[in-house]
Amino acid sequence: MTTGVRRRMGVEERRQQLIGVALELFSRRSPDEVSIDEIASAAGISRPLVYHYFPGKLSLYEAALKRASEDLAARFSEPHEGPLGARLLRVMRRYFDFVDEHGPGFAALMRGGPAVGSSATNALIDSVRQVAYEQILAHLEITEAPARLELVVRSWISLAESTALIWLDGRRIPRGELEVQLVHDFAALTAVSAAYDEEMTALVKRMVQDEPAEGPFADLAARLIALAG
Amino acid sequence: MTTGVRRRMGVEERRQQLIGVALELFSRRSPDEVSIDEIASAAGISRPLVYHYFPGKLSLYEAALKRASEDLAARFSEPHEGPLGARLLRVMRRYFDFVDEHGPGFAALMRGGPAVGSSATNALIDSVRQVAYEQILAHLEITEAPARLELVVRSWISLAESTALIWLDGRRIPRGELEVQLVHDFAALTAVSAAYDEEMTALVKRMVQDEPAEGPFADLAARLIALAG
Repeated sequence: MTTGVRRRMGVEERRQQLIGVALELFSRRSPDEVSIDEIASAAGISRPLVYHYFPGKLSLYEAALKRASEDLAARFSEPHEGPLGARLLRVMRRYFDFVDEHGPGFAALMRGGPAVGSSATNALIDSVRQVAYEQILAHLEITEAPARLELVVRSWISLAESTALIWLDGRRIPRGELEVQLVHDFAALTAVSAAYDEEMTALVKRMVQDEPAEGPFADLAARLIALAG
Repeated sequence: MTTGVRRRMGVEERRQQLIGVALELFSRRSPDEVSIDEIASAAGISRPLVYHYFPGKLSLYEAALKRASEDLAARFSEPHEGPLGARLLRVMRRYFDFVDEHGPGFAALMRGGPAVGSSATNALIDSVRQVAYEQILAHLEITEAPARLELVVRSWISLAESTALIWLDGRRIPRGELEVQLVHDFAALTAVSAAYDEEMTALVKRMVQDEPAEGPFADLAARLIALAG
Protein backbone atom coordinates (compact mmCIF):
# COMPACT_ATOMS: atom_id res chain seq x y z
CA MET A 1 0.00 0.00 0.00
CA THR A 2 3.00 2.35 -0.40
CA THR A 3 3.68 4.50 -3.43
CA GLY A 4 6.59 2.16 -4.10
CA VAL A 5 4.10 -0.65 -4.67
CA ARG A 6 1.90 1.66 -6.74
CA ARG A 7 4.61 2.45 -9.24
CA ARG A 8 5.26 -1.21 -9.83
CA MET A 9 1.63 -2.06 -10.64
CA GLY A 10 0.52 -2.34 -14.26
CA VAL A 11 -2.84 -1.01 -15.45
CA GLU A 12 -4.68 -4.33 -15.31
CA GLU A 13 -3.10 -5.26 -12.00
CA ARG A 14 -4.19 -1.92 -10.53
CA ARG A 15 -7.70 -2.35 -11.90
CA GLN A 16 -7.93 -5.80 -10.32
CA GLN A 17 -6.63 -4.43 -7.02
CA LEU A 18 -9.28 -1.68 -7.02
CA ILE A 19 -12.01 -4.21 -7.83
CA GLY A 20 -10.84 -6.35 -4.92
CA VAL A 21 -10.77 -3.37 -2.56
CA ALA A 22 -14.26 -2.30 -3.69
CA LEU A 23 -15.70 -5.81 -3.22
CA GLU A 24 -14.16 -5.99 0.24
CA LEU A 25 -15.83 -2.68 1.19
CA PHE A 26 -19.15 -3.71 -0.43
CA SER A 27 -19.07 -6.90 1.65
CA ARG A 28 -19.35 -4.80 4.80
CA ARG A 29 -21.50 -1.83 3.69
CA SER A 30 -23.92 -1.11 0.86
CA PRO A 31 -22.18 0.18 -2.30
CA ASP A 32 -24.29 3.36 -2.03
CA GLU A 33 -22.54 4.16 1.23
CA VAL A 34 -19.01 3.54 -0.04
CA SER A 35 -17.32 6.59 -1.60
CA ILE A 36 -14.57 6.71 -4.20
CA ASP A 37 -12.48 8.47 -1.53
CA GLU A 38 -12.76 5.43 0.72
CA ILE A 39 -11.88 3.06 -2.09
CA ALA A 40 -8.86 5.23 -2.96
CA SER A 41 -7.79 5.35 0.66
CA ALA A 42 -8.17 1.58 1.17
CA ALA A 43 -6.15 0.98 -2.01
CA GLY A 44 -3.47 3.45 -0.88
CA ILE A 45 -3.81 5.68 -3.95
CA SER A 46 -5.24 9.13 -4.68
CA ARG A 47 -8.83 9.77 -5.73
CA PRO A 48 -7.81 11.14 -9.17
CA LEU A 49 -5.80 7.98 -9.80
CA VAL A 50 -8.91 5.84 -9.17
CA TYR A 51 -10.64 7.85 -11.90
CA HIS A 52 -7.68 7.12 -14.15
CA TYR A 53 -8.56 3.41 -13.99
CA PHE A 54 -12.35 3.74 -13.74
CA PRO A 55 -14.09 6.79 -15.27
CA GLY A 56 -16.74 6.80 -12.50
CA LYS A 57 -18.10 4.91 -9.53
CA LEU A 58 -20.63 3.09 -11.74
CA SER A 59 -17.89 1.66 -13.95
CA LEU A 60 -15.95 0.44 -10.90
CA TYR A 61 -19.18 -0.95 -9.46
CA GLU A 62 -19.93 -2.78 -12.71
CA ALA A 63 -16.41 -4.22 -12.86
CA ALA A 64 -16.73 -5.41 -9.24
CA LEU A 65 -20.11 -6.90 -10.02
CA LYS A 66 -18.68 -8.68 -13.04
CA ARG A 67 -15.99 -10.34 -10.93
CA ALA A 68 -18.51 -11.28 -8.22
CA SER A 69 -20.87 -12.71 -10.89
CA GLU A 70 -18.11 -14.89 -12.33
CA ASP A 71 -17.21 -16.02 -8.82
CA LEU A 72 -20.83 -16.96 -8.07
CA ALA A 73 -21.37 -18.69 -11.42
CA ALA A 74 -18.21 -20.76 -10.83
CA ARG A 75 -19.66 -21.99 -7.52
CA PHE A 76 -22.60 -23.53 -9.38
CA SER A 77 -20.26 -26.07 -10.98
CA GLU A 78 -20.77 -29.49 -9.47
CA PRO A 79 -19.61 -32.92 -10.68
CA HIS A 80 -22.34 -35.00 -12.34
CA GLU A 81 -21.97 -37.79 -9.82
CA GLY A 82 -24.12 -39.17 -7.05
CA PRO A 83 -27.72 -38.38 -6.08
CA LEU A 84 -29.21 -35.12 -7.39
CA GLY A 85 -30.40 -33.94 -3.96
CA ALA A 86 -26.87 -34.13 -2.52
CA ARG A 87 -25.46 -32.28 -5.54
CA LEU A 88 -27.97 -29.47 -5.19
CA LEU A 89 -27.32 -29.26 -1.45
CA ARG A 90 -23.58 -28.79 -2.05
CA VAL A 91 -24.34 -25.98 -4.51
CA MET A 92 -26.70 -24.37 -1.99
CA ARG A 93 -23.92 -24.43 0.63
CA ARG A 94 -21.56 -22.61 -1.76
CA TYR A 95 -24.36 -20.20 -2.74
CA PHE A 96 -24.91 -19.23 0.90
CA ASP A 97 -21.13 -18.94 1.36
CA PHE A 98 -21.18 -16.36 -1.43
CA VAL A 99 -24.21 -14.52 -0.02
CA ASP A 100 -22.59 -14.54 3.41
CA GLU A 101 -19.28 -13.16 2.07
CA HIS A 102 -20.92 -10.44 -0.02
CA GLY A 103 -23.86 -9.60 2.30
CA PRO A 104 -24.51 -5.86 1.88
CA GLY A 105 -23.30 -5.77 -1.73
CA PHE A 106 -25.54 -8.72 -2.66
CA ALA A 107 -28.55 -7.22 -0.87
CA ALA A 108 -28.12 -3.77 -2.44
CA LEU A 109 -27.76 -5.29 -5.90
CA MET A 110 -30.74 -7.62 -5.70
CA ARG A 111 -33.01 -5.08 -4.03
CA GLY A 112 -32.23 -2.55 -6.75
CA GLY A 113 -30.68 0.42 -4.95
CA PRO A 114 -29.91 3.79 -6.55
CA ALA A 115 -26.42 2.69 -7.66
CA VAL A 116 -27.84 -0.19 -9.66
CA GLY A 117 -30.54 -0.78 -12.23
CA SER A 118 -28.31 -0.05 -15.22
CA SER A 119 -28.68 -2.25 -18.29
CA ALA A 120 -25.20 -3.64 -17.65
CA THR A 121 -25.92 -4.72 -14.08
CA ASN A 122 -29.26 -6.23 -15.04
CA ALA A 123 -27.60 -8.16 -17.86
CA LEU A 124 -24.98 -9.50 -15.42
CA ILE A 125 -27.63 -10.65 -12.94
CA ASP A 126 -29.55 -12.34 -15.74
CA SER A 127 -26.38 -14.05 -16.99
CA VAL A 128 -25.80 -15.61 -13.55
CA ARG A 129 -29.43 -16.76 -13.44
CA GLN A 130 -28.98 -18.28 -16.88
CA VAL A 131 -25.86 -20.19 -15.75
CA ALA A 132 -27.83 -21.54 -12.77
CA TYR A 133 -30.69 -22.55 -15.07
CA GLU A 134 -28.42 -24.32 -17.55
CA GLN A 135 -26.51 -26.10 -14.78
CA ILE A 136 -29.72 -27.51 -13.35
CA LEU A 137 -30.92 -28.73 -16.75
CA ALA A 138 -27.52 -30.33 -17.36
CA HIS A 139 -27.74 -32.22 -14.06
CA LEU A 140 -31.25 -33.35 -14.99
CA GLU A 141 -29.73 -34.47 -18.33
CA ILE A 142 -32.25 -32.40 -20.27
CA THR A 143 -31.34 -30.34 -23.31
CA GLU A 144 -34.74 -29.01 -24.37
CA ALA A 145 -36.77 -28.14 -21.28
CA PRO A 146 -40.55 -28.37 -21.63
CA ALA A 147 -42.31 -25.12 -20.67
CA ARG A 148 -43.44 -26.45 -17.27
CA LEU A 149 -39.94 -27.54 -16.29
CA GLU A 150 -38.47 -24.22 -17.39
CA LEU A 151 -41.04 -22.44 -15.25
CA VAL A 152 -40.27 -24.59 -12.19
CA VAL A 153 -36.50 -24.16 -12.50
CA ARG A 154 -36.52 -20.43 -13.24
CA SER A 155 -39.09 -19.62 -10.56
CA TRP A 156 -37.18 -21.74 -8.03
CA ILE A 157 -34.04 -19.71 -8.83
CA SER A 158 -35.95 -16.54 -7.91
CA LEU A 159 -37.16 -18.31 -4.75
CA ALA A 160 -33.52 -19.04 -3.87
CA GLU A 161 -32.65 -15.37 -4.38
CA SER A 162 -35.46 -14.10 -2.19
CA THR A 163 -34.72 -16.73 0.47
CA ALA A 164 -31.09 -15.54 0.60
CA LEU A 165 -32.17 -11.89 0.77
CA ILE A 166 -34.63 -12.54 3.59
CA TRP A 167 -31.95 -14.52 5.43
CA LEU A 168 -29.52 -11.59 5.15
CA ASP A 169 -32.11 -9.31 6.72
CA GLY A 170 -31.48 -10.26 10.34
CA ARG A 171 -30.21 -13.84 9.86
CA ARG A 172 -33.02 -15.11 12.07
CA ILE A 173 -32.96 -18.65 10.67
CA PRO A 174 -29.75 -20.74 10.58
CA ARG A 175 -28.44 -20.73 7.01
CA GLY A 176 -27.83 -24.49 7.06
CA GLU A 177 -31.56 -25.00 7.53
CA LEU A 178 -32.33 -22.80 4.53
CA GLU A 179 -29.79 -24.61 2.34
CA VAL A 180 -31.66 -27.87 2.99
CA GLN A 181 -35.03 -26.13 2.68
CA LEU A 182 -34.21 -24.84 -0.80
CA VAL A 183 -33.34 -28.38 -1.94
CA HIS A 184 -36.67 -29.52 -0.54
CA ASP A 185 -38.45 -26.56 -2.13
CA PHE A 186 -37.06 -27.60 -5.51
CA ALA A 187 -38.44 -31.10 -5.03
CA ALA A 188 -41.78 -29.77 -3.79
CA LEU A 189 -42.28 -27.30 -6.65
CA THR A 190 -41.36 -29.98 -9.17
CA ALA A 191 -43.77 -32.42 -7.52
CA VAL A 192 -46.60 -29.86 -7.56
CA SER A 193 -46.07 -29.35 -11.28
CA ALA A 194 -45.87 -33.11 -11.82
CA ALA A 195 -49.12 -33.70 -9.93
CA TYR A 196 -51.01 -32.28 -12.91
CA ASP A 197 -48.75 -33.05 -15.87
CA GLU A 198 -47.61 -36.40 -17.27
CA GLU A 199 -44.36 -35.13 -18.80
CA MET A 200 -43.32 -33.67 -15.43
CA THR A 201 -44.39 -36.89 -13.69
CA ALA A 202 -41.97 -38.90 -15.83
CA LEU A 203 -39.24 -36.39 -15.07
CA VAL A 204 -39.81 -36.51 -11.30
CA LYS A 205 -39.76 -40.31 -11.31
CA ARG A 206 -36.42 -40.22 -13.09
CA MET A 207 -35.11 -37.55 -10.70
CA VAL A 208 -35.84 -39.55 -7.56
CA GLN A 209 -34.88 -43.01 -8.81
CA ASP A 210 -31.26 -42.66 -7.65
CA GLU A 211 -32.06 -40.88 -4.38
CA PRO A 212 -30.83 -42.81 -1.34
CA ALA A 213 -33.28 -43.84 1.40
CA GLU A 214 -31.47 -41.52 3.84
CA GLY A 215 -31.21 -38.60 1.35
CA PRO A 216 -32.97 -35.23 1.69
CA PHE A 217 -35.83 -36.13 -0.68
CA ALA A 218 -36.73 -39.38 1.09
CA ASP A 219 -36.52 -37.70 4.49
CA LEU A 220 -38.80 -34.89 3.34
CA ALA A 221 -41.31 -37.33 1.84
CA ALA A 222 -41.45 -39.31 5.09
CA ARG A 223 -41.97 -36.14 7.12
CA LEU A 224 -44.66 -34.83 4.78
CA ILE A 225 -46.55 -38.12 4.98
CA ALA A 226 -46.32 -37.91 8.78
CA LEU A 227 -47.57 -34.30 8.62
CA ALA A 228 -50.52 -35.28 6.42
CA GLY A 229 -51.43 -38.15 8.76
CA MET B 1 -60.01 14.77 -27.79
CA THR B 2 -60.76 18.22 -29.23
CA THR B 3 -59.30 21.46 -27.89
CA GLY B 4 -62.81 22.24 -26.64
CA VAL B 5 -62.57 19.21 -24.34
CA ARG B 6 -59.04 20.16 -23.37
CA ARG B 7 -60.00 23.61 -22.16
CA ARG B 8 -62.67 22.22 -19.89
CA MET B 9 -60.27 19.83 -18.07
CA GLY B 10 -58.85 20.82 -14.68
CA VAL B 11 -55.24 20.12 -13.73
CA GLU B 12 -55.95 16.98 -11.74
CA GLU B 13 -58.40 15.69 -14.33
CA ARG B 14 -55.81 16.19 -17.07
CA ARG B 15 -53.12 14.47 -15.01
CA GLN B 16 -55.44 11.50 -14.47
CA GLN B 17 -56.23 11.38 -18.19
CA LEU B 18 -52.51 11.34 -19.08
CA ILE B 19 -51.87 8.58 -16.54
CA GLY B 20 -54.68 6.53 -18.07
CA VAL B 21 -53.35 7.10 -21.59
CA ALA B 22 -49.82 6.14 -20.50
CA LEU B 23 -51.02 2.94 -18.77
CA GLU B 24 -53.00 2.01 -21.87
CA LEU B 25 -49.86 2.43 -24.03
CA PHE B 26 -47.67 0.59 -21.47
CA SER B 27 -50.13 -2.33 -21.56
CA ARG B 28 -49.26 -2.90 -25.21
CA ARG B 29 -45.57 -1.92 -25.39
CA SER B 30 -42.71 -1.55 -22.93
CA PRO B 31 -42.57 1.94 -21.33
CA ASP B 32 -39.06 2.33 -22.78
CA GLU B 33 -40.55 2.20 -26.25
CA VAL B 34 -43.34 4.70 -25.61
CA SER B 35 -42.40 8.34 -26.21
CA ILE B 36 -43.86 11.47 -24.68
CA ASP B 37 -44.90 12.41 -28.23
CA GLU B 38 -47.04 9.29 -28.47
CA ILE B 39 -48.61 9.91 -25.09
CA ALA B 40 -49.36 13.52 -26.11
CA SER B 41 -50.83 12.38 -29.40
CA ALA B 42 -53.00 9.69 -27.78
CA ALA B 43 -54.25 12.25 -25.24
CA GLY B 44 -54.97 14.77 -28.00
CA ILE B 45 -52.67 17.45 -26.57
CA SER B 46 -49.30 18.94 -27.45
CA ARG B 47 -45.98 17.62 -26.20
CA PRO B 48 -45.18 20.85 -24.25
CA LEU B 49 -48.55 20.59 -22.50
CA VAL B 50 -47.66 17.08 -21.27
CA TYR B 51 -44.54 18.58 -19.70
CA HIS B 52 -46.78 21.19 -18.05
CA TYR B 53 -48.47 18.38 -16.10
CA PHE B 54 -45.45 16.10 -15.70
CA PRO B 55 -41.90 17.57 -15.66
CA GLY B 56 -40.47 14.50 -17.42
CA LYS B 57 -41.22 11.01 -18.62
CA LEU B 58 -40.00 9.52 -15.31
CA SER B 59 -42.52 11.55 -13.31
CA LEU B 60 -45.36 10.45 -15.60
CA TYR B 61 -44.08 6.87 -15.40
CA GLU B 62 -44.00 7.02 -11.61
CA ALA B 63 -47.52 8.45 -11.46
CA ALA B 64 -48.75 5.69 -13.78
CA LEU B 65 -46.97 3.09 -11.67
CA LYS B 66 -48.55 4.52 -8.53
CA ARG B 67 -52.04 4.13 -9.97
CA ALA B 68 -51.28 0.61 -11.20
CA SER B 69 -49.84 -0.32 -7.78
CA GLU B 70 -52.99 0.86 -6.02
CA ASP B 71 -55.09 -1.05 -8.53
CA LEU B 72 -53.10 -4.25 -7.92
CA ALA B 73 -53.08 -3.87 -4.14
CA ALA B 74 -56.87 -3.42 -4.20
CA ARG B 75 -57.22 -6.75 -6.02
CA PHE B 76 -55.58 -8.54 -3.08
CA SER B 77 -58.62 -7.74 -0.91
CA GLU B 78 -60.67 -10.84 -0.29
CA PRO B 79 -63.43 -11.51 2.26
CA HIS B 80 -62.33 -13.57 5.26
CA GLU B 81 -64.86 -16.28 4.53
CA GLY B 82 -64.66 -19.88 3.40
CA PRO B 83 -61.66 -22.15 2.90
CA LEU B 84 -58.23 -20.48 2.61
CA GLY B 85 -57.29 -22.31 -0.61
CA ALA B 86 -60.36 -20.97 -2.42
CA ARG B 87 -59.66 -17.44 -1.18
CA LEU B 88 -56.08 -17.54 -2.41
CA LEU B 89 -57.20 -18.94 -5.75
CA ARG B 90 -59.63 -16.03 -6.26
CA VAL B 91 -56.80 -13.58 -5.51
CA MET B 92 -54.52 -15.41 -7.97
CA ARG B 93 -57.19 -15.05 -10.68
CA ARG B 94 -57.36 -11.30 -10.11
CA TYR B 95 -53.53 -11.12 -9.97
CA PHE B 96 -53.25 -12.77 -13.39
CA ASP B 97 -56.03 -10.48 -14.68
CA PHE B 98 -53.81 -7.55 -13.69
CA VAL B 99 -50.67 -9.11 -15.18
CA ASP B 100 -52.61 -9.87 -18.37
CA GLU B 101 -53.97 -6.31 -18.63
CA HIS B 102 -50.61 -4.64 -17.98
CA GLY B 103 -48.34 -7.19 -19.74
CA PRO B 104 -45.43 -5.19 -21.19
CA GLY B 105 -45.54 -2.52 -18.49
CA PHE B 106 -45.50 -5.15 -15.73
CA ALA B 107 -42.66 -7.08 -17.38
CA ALA B 108 -40.52 -3.97 -17.94
CA LEU B 109 -41.03 -2.84 -14.36
CA MET B 110 -40.28 -6.18 -12.72
CA ARG B 111 -37.33 -6.95 -14.97
CA GLY B 112 -35.80 -3.56 -14.17
CA GLY B 113 -35.50 -1.78 -17.51
CA PRO B 114 -33.65 1.51 -18.10
CA ALA B 115 -36.72 3.63 -17.29
CA VAL B 116 -37.03 2.08 -13.85
CA GLY B 117 -34.83 1.37 -10.86
CA SER B 118 -35.46 4.73 -9.21
CA SER B 119 -35.93 4.80 -5.44
CA ALA B 120 -39.56 5.82 -5.97
CA THR B 121 -40.40 2.88 -8.24
CA ASN B 122 -38.62 0.40 -5.97
CA ALA B 123 -40.51 1.78 -2.97
CA LEU B 124 -43.82 1.34 -4.83
CA ILE B 125 -43.03 -2.26 -5.76
CA ASP B 126 -42.07 -3.01 -2.17
CA SER B 127 -45.25 -1.38 -0.89
CA VAL B 128 -47.38 -3.71 -3.06
CA ARG B 129 -45.37 -6.72 -1.82
CA GLN B 130 -45.97 -5.54 1.73
CA VAL B 131 -49.74 -5.31 1.15
CA ALA B 132 -49.70 -8.87 -0.24
CA TYR B 133 -47.71 -10.06 2.77
CA GLU B 134 -50.03 -8.41 5.29
CA GLN B 135 -53.15 -9.68 3.53
CA ILE B 136 -51.88 -13.26 3.71
CA LEU B 137 -51.04 -12.95 7.41
CA ALA B 138 -54.48 -11.46 8.07
CA HIS B 139 -56.17 -14.42 6.34
CA LEU B 140 -54.04 -16.79 8.41
CA GLU B 141 -55.20 -14.77 11.46
CA ILE B 142 -51.62 -14.12 12.50
CA THR B 143 -50.40 -10.77 13.79
CA GLU B 144 -46.78 -11.57 14.68
CA ALA B 145 -45.34 -13.92 12.07
CA PRO B 146 -42.54 -16.23 13.25
CA ALA B 147 -39.38 -15.91 11.10
CA ARG B 148 -40.05 -19.15 9.21
CA LEU B 149 -43.58 -18.12 8.24
CA GLU B 150 -42.40 -14.67 7.15
CA LEU B 151 -39.78 -16.35 4.96
CA VAL B 152 -42.32 -18.71 3.37
CA VAL B 153 -44.84 -15.95 2.65
CA ARG B 154 -42.35 -13.39 1.33
CA SER B 155 -40.45 -15.89 -0.79
CA TRP B 156 -43.72 -17.27 -2.18
CA ILE B 157 -44.66 -13.70 -3.20
CA SER B 158 -41.45 -13.51 -5.22
CA LEU B 159 -42.27 -16.93 -6.69
CA ALA B 160 -45.66 -15.55 -7.77
CA GLU B 161 -43.92 -12.59 -9.43
CA SER B 162 -41.46 -14.73 -11.33
CA THR B 163 -44.19 -17.18 -12.34
CA ALA B 164 -46.22 -14.31 -13.79
CA LEU B 165 -43.17 -12.91 -15.61
CA ILE B 166 -42.29 -16.29 -17.12
CA TRP B 167 -45.92 -16.74 -18.17
CA LEU B 168 -45.87 -13.35 -19.93
CA ASP B 169 -42.82 -14.44 -21.90
CA GLY B 170 -44.62 -16.48 -24.54
CA ARG B 171 -47.72 -17.54 -22.55
CA ARG B 172 -46.83 -21.18 -23.16
CA ILE B 173 -48.80 -22.50 -20.18
CA PRO B 174 -52.51 -21.68 -19.67
CA ARG B 175 -52.76 -19.02 -16.97
CA GLY B 176 -55.59 -20.87 -15.19
CA GLU B 177 -53.18 -23.73 -14.58
CA LEU B 178 -50.61 -21.37 -13.06
CA GLU B 179 -53.20 -19.72 -10.81
CA VAL B 180 -53.95 -23.13 -9.28
CA GLN B 181 -50.26 -24.05 -9.25
CA LEU B 182 -49.37 -20.97 -7.19
CA VAL B 183 -52.00 -21.92 -4.60
CA HIS B 184 -50.47 -25.40 -4.49
CA ASP B 185 -46.97 -23.94 -4.34
CA PHE B 186 -47.98 -21.94 -1.28
CA ALA B 187 -49.22 -25.10 0.43
CA ALA B 188 -46.11 -27.05 -0.62
CA LEU B 189 -43.61 -24.42 0.57
CA THR B 190 -45.47 -24.12 3.88
CA ALA B 191 -45.51 -27.91 4.27
CA VAL B 192 -41.76 -28.15 3.55
CA SER B 193 -41.09 -25.58 6.25
CA ALA B 194 -43.48 -27.39 8.62
CA ALA B 195 -41.77 -30.74 8.02
CA TYR B 196 -38.83 -29.53 10.13
CA ASP B 197 -40.44 -27.04 12.53
CA GLU B 198 -43.10 -27.57 15.21
CA GLU B 199 -44.45 -24.03 15.15
CA MET B 200 -45.00 -24.27 11.38
CA THR B 201 -46.56 -27.73 11.83
CA ALA B 202 -49.20 -26.28 14.16
CA LEU B 203 -49.86 -23.52 11.66
CA VAL B 204 -50.27 -25.90 8.72
CA LYS B 205 -52.67 -28.09 10.67
CA ARG B 206 -54.79 -25.03 11.45
CA MET B 207 -54.61 -23.90 7.79
CA VAL B 208 -55.95 -27.15 6.37
CA GLN B 209 -58.56 -27.92 9.02
CA ASP B 210 -61.30 -26.07 7.14
CA GLU B 211 -60.26 -27.20 3.67
CA PRO B 212 -63.00 -29.15 1.89
CA ALA B 213 -62.35 -32.71 0.65
CA GLU B 214 -62.76 -31.46 -2.95
CA GLY B 215 -60.63 -28.31 -2.45
CA PRO B 216 -57.28 -27.59 -4.13
CA PHE B 217 -55.20 -28.68 -1.12
CA ALA B 218 -56.89 -32.05 -0.71
CA ASP B 219 -56.71 -32.71 -4.44
CA LEU B 220 -53.00 -31.88 -4.48
CA ALA B 221 -52.31 -34.09 -1.46
CA ALA B 222 -54.09 -37.02 -3.11
CA ARG B 223 -52.15 -36.56 -6.34
CA LEU B 224 -48.81 -36.24 -4.54
CA ILE B 225 -49.47 -39.43 -2.60
CA ALA B 226 -50.29 -41.14 -5.89
CA LEU B 227 -47.08 -39.73 -7.39
CA ALA B 228 -45.00 -40.99 -4.46
CA GLY B 229 -46.60 -44.44 -4.68
